[in-house]
Amino acid sequence: MAPRRLRIGVAGLGRMGKRHAMNFSQSVPRAELVAVSTPDASERQWAEIHLGPSGVSVYANYEDMLRHEGLEAVCIASVTSVHADQAIRGIAAGKHVLCEKPLATTAEVSQSVVDAAARRPDLKVMCGFSRRFDDSYRDAHAKVEAGLIGRPSVIRSQTCDVLDPSGFFVAYAQFSGGIFVDCSIHDIDLAQWFFGEDSKVQSVSAVGITAVEPGLREYDDRDNAVGVIEYADGRIAYLYCSRMMAAGQEDSTEIIGTHGKLTVNLIPQENLVRIYEPGGIRHELPQNYYGRFKNAFAREAVEFTDCCLDDIEVPVKLASAVTAVRIGAALQQSMISGEKVRFDNAGEGAERAHL
Amino acid sequence: MAPRRLRIGVAGLGRMGKRHAMNFSQSVPRAELVAVSTPDASERQWAEIHLGPSGVSVYANYEDMLRHEGLEAVCIASVTSVHADQAIRGIAAGKHVLCEKPLATTAEVSQSVVDAAARRPDLKVMCGFSRRFDDSYRDAHAKVEAGLIGRPSVIRSQTCDVLDPSGFFVAYAQFSGGIFVDCSIHDIDLAQWFFGEDSKVQSVSAVGITAVEPGLREYDDRDNAVGVIEYADGRIAYLYCSRMMAAGQEDSTEIIGTHGKLTVNLIPQENLVRIYEPGGIRHELPQNYYGRFKNAFAREAVEFTDCCLDDIEVPVKLASAVTAVRIGAALQQSMISGEKVRFDNAGEGAERAHL
Amino acid sequence: MAPRRLRIGVAGLGRMGKRHAMNFSQSVPRAELVAVSTPDASERQWAEIHLGPSGVSVYANYEDMLRHEGLEAVCIASVTSVHADQAIRGIAAGKHVLCEKPLATTAEVSQSVVDAAARRPDLKVMCGFSRRFDDSYRDAHAKVEAGLIGRPSVIRSQTCDVLDPSGFFVAYAQFSGGIFVDCSIHDIDLAQWFFGEDSKVQSVSAVGITAVEPGLREYDDRDNAVGVIEYADGRIAYLYCSRMMAAGQEDSTEIIGTHGKLTVNLIPQENLVRIYEPGGIRHELPQNYYGRFKNAFAREAVEFTDCCLDDIEVPVKLASAVTAVRIGAALQQSMISGEKVRFDNAGEGAERAHL
Amino acid sequence: MAPRRLRIGVAGLGRMGKRHAMNFSQSVPRAELVAVSTPDASERQWAEIHLGPSGVSVYANYEDMLRHEGLEAVCIASVTSVHADQAIRGIAAGKHVLCEKPLATTAEVSQSVVDAAARRPDLKVMCGFSRRFDDSYRDAHAKVEAGLIGRPSVIRSQTCDVLDPSGFFVAYAQFSGGIFVDCSIHDIDLAQWFFGEDSKVQSVSAVGITAVEPGLREYDDRDNAVGVIEYADGRIAYLYCSRMMAAGQEDSTEIIGTHGKLTVNLIPQENLVRIYEPGGIRHELPQNYYGRFKNAFAREAVEFTDCCLDDIEVPVKLASAVTAVRIGAALQQSMISGEKVRFDNAGEGAERAHL
Repeated sequence: MAPRRLRIGVAGLGRMGKRHAMNFSQSVPRAELVAVSTPDASERQWAEIHLGPSGVSVYANYEDMLRHEGLEAVCIASVTSVHADQAIRGIAAGKHVLCEKPLATTAEVSQSVVDAAARRPDLKVMCGFSRRFDDSYRDAHAKVEAGLIGRPSVIRSQTCDVLDPSGFFVAYAQFSGGIFVDCSIHDIDLAQWFFGEDSKVQSVSAVGITAVEPGLREYDDRDNAVGVIEYADGRIAYLYCSRMMAAGQEDSTEIIGTHGKLTVNLIPQENLVRIYEPGGIRHELPQNYYGRFKNAFAREAVEFTDCCLDDIEVPVKLASAVTAVRIGAALQQSMISGEKVRFDNAGEGAERAHL
Repeated sequence: MAPRRLRIGVAGLGRMGKRHAMNFSQSVPRAELVAVSTPDASERQWAEIHLGPSGVSVYANYEDMLRHEGLEAVCIASVTSVHADQAIRGIAAGKHVLCEKPLATTAEVSQSVVDAAARRPDLKVMCGFSRRFDDSYRDAHAKVEAGLIGRPSVIRSQTCDVLDPSGFFVAYAQFSGGIFVDCSIHDIDLAQWFFGEDSKVQSVSAVGITAVEPGLREYDDRDNAVGVIEYADGRIAYLYCSRMMAAGQEDSTEIIGTHGKLTVNLIPQENLVRIYEPGGIRHELPQNYYGRFKNAFAREAVEFTDCCLDDIEVPVKLASAVTAVRIGAALQQSMISGEKVRFDNAGEGAERAHL
Repeated sequence: MAPRRLRIGVAGLGRMGKRHAMNFSQSVPRAELVAVSTPDASERQWAEIHLGPSGVSVYANYEDMLRHEGLEAVCIASVTSVHADQAIRGIAAGKHVLCEKPLATTAEVSQSVVDAAARRPDLKVMCGFSRRFDDSYRDAHAKVEAGLIGRPSVIRSQTCDVLDPSGFFVAYAQFSGGIFVDCSIHDIDLAQWFFGEDSKVQSVSAVGITAVEPGLREYDDRDNAVGVIEYADGRIAYLYCSRMMAAGQEDSTEIIGTHGKLTVNLIPQENLVRIYEPGGIRHELPQNYYGRFKNAFAREAVEFTDCCLDDIEVPVKLASAVTAVRIGAALQQSMISGEKVRFDNAGEGAERAHL
Repeated sequence: MAPRRLRIGVAGLGRMGKRHAMNFSQSVPRAELVAVSTPDASERQWAEIHLGPSGVSVYANYEDMLRHEGLEAVCIASVTSVHADQAIRGIAAGKHVLCEKPLATTAEVSQSVVDAAARRPDLKVMCGFSRRFDDSYRDAHAKVEAGLIGRPSVIRSQTCDVLDPSGFFVAYAQFSGGIFVDCSIHDIDLAQWFFGEDSKVQSVSAVGITAVEPGLREYDDRDNAVGVIEYADGRIAYLYCSRMMAAGQEDSTEIIGTHGKLTVNLIPQENLVRIYEPGGIRHELPQNYYGRFKNAFAREAVEFTDCCLDDIEVPVKLASAVTAVRIGAALQQSMISGEKVRFDNAGEGAERAHL
């Protein structure tokens, strides 16, 4: 009598992996978290404590999890460097795949996931661009589609993390693909979404500094950067990414059209409380990306589950994830080289050999 | 292997009933909606379409639903006038009860529910003061408990509905108990929560007008009203309730302490989108109470379910619901009589015979 | 060739007096501050230093200042208890008079100023309700007049001062007329302005507490109070006044109409700067009434000067000042007595003997 | 006895000229507007009506105005193309000079004004960067100087005008120097002010589009543009300028430091009124640059007057105006050429021959 539930496993139990696992465990009535996998012993210990009592199987090895009886889908939240490989192996094993962004740190490797998915049209494969599931971004997108602001012409968008003085981001830079691929990829995806998925990039340029983490230079990364994307049809997206925010996570977007403008989260807020005290009026902010987008992550999980169970198309095309990586990697390259990167007519970086 | 789920039924499928039913059906992984009941044929038809496919049984009669095999709990969302009776019958049948506010329109009848619950300490019985489950109110309460603003001394709170030109509120006034019992009861409950559940009221006074709905006078009701509650220990709560808002639902609260102030939702917002257009910058508002508090309703359902399954105390004491009705009814009385209503030392209205 | 300038003197050099003197000296091109008077020796010393070099004569005695050769107008900023007497003597001496609010702490004495002014229609006599000269209040009033919100039906307005732990407000309470006459008189005047100058009050009621300054009780005053004004034509104004704000001066107003609502200064701000820091986003507030309304005070001085020089009617009718005191004193009476004060048909307090 | 007043003349009575003239006439007690000059007959007619009655002499010819008896200072508000020439002639005639920005559209011509001023150290010569006189920018600057946000590392700043569908900006583009010189020069000046006047630019790059005014291309201009300035000491300023805003003038600035961030005017507002109506909550914006900065213009005039009368140094160094033009012109060049412009070690554009 009870409706059928999607049996899903989560790969990777780092910060995002734990959240995905808890989400599928507690917030997605149509899904049943049946397995998790992680090579990290302490993460497996966490899983035994928090998920074991609900009957979730805990694997050290991703391949073993793929063989879990009855498993239908996987959510990949491992380190970025194995995203593509795990996605392709999941597809090969006949599982639906929800993969954390980015698919990979290069367009070429990202494309290999798209190619694998193309060979299995029966499976649902989606890259998790969480903002596309956020109420506010969806409302803004619907308003743009309805013509409220005329032709969207300029987008300003930023992904700015709280300063983490522990040095985390230096270590993380080895694998992240760089700040434009790790952070700005969300903003790049938004630009594609708002301007049109098939918008052609003409050039990108970027500059970056290390205001607080000089150690990032060793990995060709920066802690604050500004990037500009020129589109072939006379539009501009300009981006700011940072690891240095004092007050909280600041992910803001402006979509500027010929007849109006929309902003999303221009002044971030944790909730609706305001504090009046000596010194003024104050409000708190989400302290990380998940704090800002937790409802979006839940909805992403719910909708992905619905797509798998009801065999409907996933709301974010997988090819978008390749485009976003291509642009992000080009920005990263421009930031390091100091040179503008021009794209050829096919919308691919002319100097894409560098990517 | 799958964890046990609470089998619950929803009584009443009006505006709030539908929402409760969908909530328990889709947003509470540990609950299973197994039955609904409503005397209204069109509401039953809605249920057959939206809930039938998931195996939910649809009853015309509340008693029949109570006899549904395996039913463990009921959520009562019927018209206010039957809240108390259905709650008492649910308790008598050995079901956990989550009852929409108010328990009744008089303190005496409300008390009868408390008495019934007292005879069945094994059951969870809770009145749904939804704001207590809202993230922002909870954050504010935690900050007050932590001493952030010193001693809370003055509370301003309002519950203001959008203007409904259909005449709905006139018809509704026959059963609602009046604007202070229907709307301000939330604000009264907040005052008790922030000032302390055992705070003693000294007097209440109120004034009201009919700015848009003169027909309300026939039912001794008003469309805009201001009430003032004096507490015996030198505190004040002052309330505004209205059925006349143009922009959206406006439920705002200020808690003013000796060292600071907190506001909750001082400027309501639907989401984080802002619209720039000729005429200025604009943002949309929730259009009704549920729009503002939908996350709170979901959390209320989740937590009530947890309490039932795990046998833990419900987070809102049932007695609070009686106090809130007593104060609300006294405000309503004062608004109509034009006289201040004084409470005796026991915290009960001296003129409570009128209530 | 240079245009003629109004020769004006300022009486009283306390906090507001100093500001008025500096205003007329520096911000009103068409006025020339020629004299000041104060019985306080230290205030005269301040004047010798700050105004003497500009040729301003400093008097210990108000009568002597009135005899200053060529003096055309006086601005009265002395303690409230001498406002009316100085105003009447200024009128008798043939001077235009700009008098700080309130004219007096009783309606009767206030009326005596109106009577004196009526005998000299050639003179400009105005009570300084500064908010009427504030850009934002004027914009709101123009929008209401234009019908933007339908019929204004409910006004919420507050005048809330920063906590001054020095005990200043206790000493001040002896002369101020009480918190409703001293603070809320601005809000009362706004209600009259927005509802119509000839609006008839039906009743007022008020409650008050001493949350931080119990010493105020000796002078029948309170540090936090809420007042409600019922109008005969079905409108309500409700007011909050406080001496206990932590963050800054909070003078907010809402005008709620049948088709919309306007707010003025709902979230106070010192300027357009926002501070992002650990703990959140913060902004500063004006720390006192003058900080909020300094532009309004300057404009008040400019417009009063224009009225005198160009013989045009003053923008605030003097009779309004009597009405405001009548209502304020009735609220103060209600707060102390605990009884509602009802007004008779002529719009005067039925129990006005008490005032 | 009345204090001495500075006798000043205003050159040019276009939009800004009229405002400067009214300012000196009405808002600067220590100044006396004695003359104006403009080659435009209709502007002279306006002056006869509005300024003639106050005794202001109206000239068709700037040289004639310079010979006005007793004239001590000039405010130059003519078209940009004559700024430098009029300033140099004013200096030669021994007049203090307040010149509207920019001094010229090239750094070379701007420098000629600095050179002329250097030969007359007895005169006050200032370029009117109005934002430096704005309360909010000054407060932000003081906070940065006090170390509130650590080391300022990234500045985002924009100057965005309301869409003017009349074609005004196309005609204006012939003389304005382009959008970066005309609009962003304020933001460039702010970057220099916040980062330090002697900050060295390493490179600038820019992109631009014509979203609404293709006619601008004829004059090598754009209606929306983004520019990025790299500083040699590891800082970034990024700028947006637009002629296409729907809601009003949007001049916002963020100063991002290693320990915090300040924003100025992130959400523009005309005043403190908020409008609640079907569709949401709305507030109006200033409709042009002057609306946003009128208080700053008044203060600029007051302070310039004080400097002249009291022989104190002007608050904005004249050399800053050359730096700002150099950077603005390089951005404009980059936008048109599509190439990054690199500056040599002396902080001057390596390719400055192009400017």
